[in-house]
Amino acid sequence: MRPAWIAVDWGTSNMRLWALDGNGAVLAERRSPRGMGALESTEYEGVLLDLLGDLLPGTARLPVLVCGMAGARTGWREAAYLPIPCAPAGTHAVAVETADRRLQVHILPGLCQSAPADVMRGEETQIAGFLATDPGFDGVLCLPGTHCKWVRVTEGRVAHFRTTMTGEIFALLTERSLLRHSISAGWNEAAFARGLAEAIAHPEALPLALFPLRAEALLSDLPGDVAWARLSGLLIGAELAATRTLWGERRLAVIGDDPLAALYAGALRGQGAVVGMVPAGEITLRGLRAARAALEAAA
Amino acid sequence: MRPAWIAVDWGTSNMRLWALDGNGAVLAERRSPRGMGALESTEYEGVLLDLLGDLLPGTARLPVLVCGMAGARTGWREAAYLPIPCAPAGTHAVAVETADRRLQVHILPGLCQSAPADVMRGEETQIAGFLATDPGFDGVLCLPGTHCKWVRVTEGRVAHFRTTMTGEIFALLTERSLLRHSISAGWNEAAFARGLAEAIAHPEALPLALFPLRAEALLSDLPGDVAWARLSGLLIGAELAATRTLWGERRLAVIGDDPLAALYAGALRGQGAVVGMVPAGEITLRGLRAARAALEAAA
Repeated sequence: MRPAWIAVDWGTSNMRLWALDGNGAVLAERRSPRGMGALESTEYEGVLLDLLGDLLPGTARLPVLVCGMAGARTGWREAAYLPIPCAPAGTHAVAVETADRRLQVHILPGLCQSAPADVMRGEETQIAGFLATDPGFDGVLCLPGTHCKWVRVTEGRVAHFRTTMTGEIFALLTERSLLRHSISAGWNEAAFARGLAEAIAHPEALPLALFPLRAEALLSDLPGDVAWARLSGLLIGAELAATRTLWGERRLAVIGDDPLAALYAGALRGQGAVVGMVPAGEITLRGLRAARAALEAAA
Repeated sequence: MRPAWIAVDWGTSNMRLWALDGNGAVLAERRSPRGMGALESTEYEGVLLDLLGDLLPGTARLPVLVCGMAGARTGWREAAYLPIPCAPAGTHAVAVETADRRLQVHILPGLCQSAPADVMRGEETQIAGFLATDPGFDGVLCLPGTHCKWVRVTEGRVAHFRTTMTGEIFALLTERSLLRHSISAGWNEAAFARGLAEAIAHPEALPLALFPLRAEALLSDLPGDVAWARLSGLLIGAELAATRTLWGERRLAVIGDDPLAALYAGALRGQGAVVGMVPAGEITLRGLRAARAALEAAA
């Protein structure tokens, strides 16, 4: 059975596509490590054709809807950010010219906010996927990751959002800073809780809380996994303190099913927040389906 | 004229030595890029002999006094940290066995603090150099650098100290993080002042202040040098907010003659602090002279 259309999540470090029938059911799913970070703009079409292979029609045109970093300025073709407030996906998709006439590619834009300046690209489709199953949601979504997005959603629209770099800073400190000599991947629940409580109570003191991880290793053999967990708690605690005005007093959902998402959800619950957890698994696909439906309705 | 002794500042990335006469006057000064980070413990003696060359006596013994990272666990020979409170230099130098009997090497220990855990190695000799010319100093020394030391000094002793990693975090963010795409070395005084004021007023919001540097570059072409200066202001401002209980209400001296030291001094003055600036140039040598005098008095 030939697919009716192709949904693509094209990120920085890998891409994933789904072949769907006319009802949106998945006929096939394929992945590639050839993300935006590894591609010139001229290479995207070839990657897509290779991966589609036998899914390609003989002569007919196959609609392909792409979200994510393929739409960045340094991606396949720029899909300019849409200013919020707006619905998270489904408008202003950008058509991409392809050499192979069987492909009919559109790329979805990211969202931008002017003050404070912020951008997202890819997460808007996850938000659309979330809203597809909970259209009346009024609250804040937290999307943990290398860069964590905190997104105020109301009446089906993104009203406000902020990005933190907690995940990237954790990686830099554990892999590249002096602290790397004292930190090793591992876990210690009490150390995480201690770091979290310390940073939430005194976020302004965070600059003083890092070097002790090195000094305690030198002076009292602090175990590397304890340092790892305490640093994680310190950085997430500082993030929760900084974002409290966003998530406090509001309905809250954390999107993700990895340990990081569970850490955020647990930490937020510890602060008295009522937090739902939403598996990230198929949420992007749901968002791409919603975007396609919106595009077809507008056509 | 043969030197009476050799003073050595052996850091992580380079080393520097001075040949001194019996009155402490400099007969010669030599430098090498062979710092602790590039040396095995067995290589130090050879580096020293090569650099001393014609300064070596025929058969007599030449005292060599070393401060800095050569005394780290992974250096030439460990000189265990001295617990504070204590005078910053001149006691507990560790003798090092050498194959060449003309060398009579001692390494000065760093200092440690148990709670909060902290260590220094090398800075204690700078502090001793500072106290050699201002023995009655009662206040706080700030020693900016990759890791900045804030040191409470009273009655000729180090009473308390804290280390921040501001310099290293600035380097990681500008060279290794996503922000590197939007930041280039440069300067903008107004942007520094803005970042500084923002972080001092709201240090708990720092996690939200970083990503906008990227977003403003994408959305409104924020110049790279403006981002550089604003990030510097944000990180130094957060450090000043965190250390305010240390430096507030006290006499304050910043040690250093580079632009970074001037930034710290200016930022502290902007907060109403009365700040002296002490050129770092010969301060380590003065500290090594003071340490040698203390060692001889104790012998």
